Amino acid sequence: MNQSLRDNKYAPIGVFDSGVGGLTVAREIMRQLPRERIVYFGDTARVPYGSKSRETILRYSRQIIHFLESKGVKAIVVACNTASAYALEGLRPEMKIPIIGVVKPGAKVAAAATRNGKIGVIGTEGTIASQIYTEMIRRHNPDAVVVGKACPLFVPLVEEGWLKDPITIEVARRYLASFQETGIDTLILGCTHYPLLRSVVRDIMGLGVELVNPAYETALGLGRLLEECGLSNDSAGPRMERGQSNGSANPQDAPMYQFYVSDAAEKFKNFANSILPCEIKEAQLIQIEE
Amino acid sequence: MNQSLRDNKYAPIGVFDSGVGGLTVAREIMRQLPRERIVYFGDTARVPYGSKSRETILRYSRQIIHFLESKGVKAIVVACNTASAYALEGLRPEMKIPIIGVVKPGAKVAAAATRNGKIGVIGTEGTIASQIYTEMIRRHNPDAVVVGKACPLFVPLVEEGWLKDPITIEVARRYLASFQETGIDTLILGCTHYPLLRSVVRDIMGLGVELVNPAYETALGLGRLLEECGLSNDSAGPRMERGQSNGSANPQDAPMYQFYVSDAAEKFKNFANSILPCEIKEAQLIQIEE
Repeated sequence: MNQSLRDNKYAPIGVFDSGVGGLTVAREIMRQLPRERIVYFGDTARVPYGSKSRETILRYSRQIIHFLESKGVKAIVVACNTASAYALEGLRPEMKIPIIGVVKPGAKVAAAATRNGKIGVIGTEGTIASQIYTEMIRRHNPDAVVVGKACPLFVPLVEEGWLKDPITIEVARRYLASFQETGIDTLILGCTHYPLLRSVVRDIMGLGVELVNPAYETALGLGRLLEECGLSNDSAGPRMERGQSNGSANPQDAPMYQFYVSDAAEKFKNFANSILPCEIKEAQLIQIEE
Repeated sequence: MNQSLRDNKYAPIGVFDSGVGGLTVAREIMRQLPRERIVYFGDTARVPYGSKSRETILRYSRQIIHFLESKGVKAIVVACNTASAYALEGLRPEMKIPIIGVVKPGAKVAAAATRNGKIGVIGTEGTIASQIYTEMIRRHNPDAVVVGKACPLFVPLVEEGWLKDPITIEVARRYLASFQETGIDTLILGCTHYPLLRSVVRDIMGLGVELVNPAYETALGLGRLLEECGLSNDSAGPRMERGQSNGSANPQDAPMYQFYVSDAAEKFKNFANSILPCEIKEAQLIQIEE
């Protein structure tokens, strides 16, 4: 471990998503890695990513990573399945800090969880069309049969707040019908909004199908990555470090969690406060295109 | 009429929308003003506009107008209710060419159509929150009662292609239930996607409620505006004007209809060909942010 990495261990983790969905990943990081600070960016002006092209997602992700790097983050979590699918591999060679997505951890746990080798994936059009889950699952289990299904109405239904609604159940029933006869025993919730529909999906799929939420495994993978790079914040927490502070530029003086968005900051804050374990005071609006 | 306007009458009309919805307006212009050329821009990378803030919509609209002006258009039609609601009045003072939106024409025809003075409006969250239809309707009928309802799932349902689907009918029934007891006799389809759900809305609202599609009235208003500014293409059509051509820069050599998008050009082209009266060969991808 070199000195610059050691200096960085108090720096925050950068987490980004197309909007609010990635908060389900941030929530897992807060739970599993309570000493780590987070700078979250939600691209609420350009949400959704799920129907956009690879080139556009790559361009947007690059802008966001530059922004997060300007905030001094020590590692980046791409908390969006579509961006993980389309942009992650392309961006990694350009980066000086570690970056992980949600797809690889989700694929790994699904490959380990299946008993019959038949795995379903639900996600946005982009994630499913990319076939990224199939590719990643087969790295662990080359014989796995992977069946994907795009569920484009799930995100707007979650955004509408119709989480356990008869209409949502009917939409889910229609989308999930394509898994009948496939015999899958494991289903990946391959979009960060979908854990919020977990109980609807569970009721339809039944207890015989294990639901995989990549957020949990991503936070676990992040913890491991930070360890391996010597980047874990192994202090008692930044709040305890104030005595070592050497001025306002010291990252330890910064708040534990910071939130930035490209639009509609108030709406974002309200949604965040409905799902995060802590109260957030503010989401700051920035112009990500510039 | 000054000379520069007279020279401009063969120039195209610029039409823009957040995505494909504005094609319902372009279609009306093609029908009603068959001599007019069109340059259409669909902001498919940043769709939807309906949930974004006023500031963001204003910034996006300004970028698009600059692009359309660079294509030499003689007038601009904002074929998006949200952009008409949030950006039109702010942009007009900056412009050298005429600009019209879809809200004012829709409001005018609804104010004329109602018999009991009670008018409903359905649209995106942005359009409804702006109260723009209420304001515009009251210019014609100060005593009108206007009841608005945001229907955020209608756009994704149209994009999913579930136009006459039981789920769409159920969603529509729920949204439109808020008009029960209001006694409205006129309902404005205040989003350019909604004419594609016309029959679903008609079945629920019944024949006693007149449905207003602002696209028709917008094309009519555009024709009137061009007349008044001396900008109508009163020739037998640009194809007949070749003899007057003075080189490749002459706009008369350009195709009748040109389409530009910020993402997913192929998908746009297929959708356009499913609803336009003519076959479009190509939609060109451009980076609108630059």
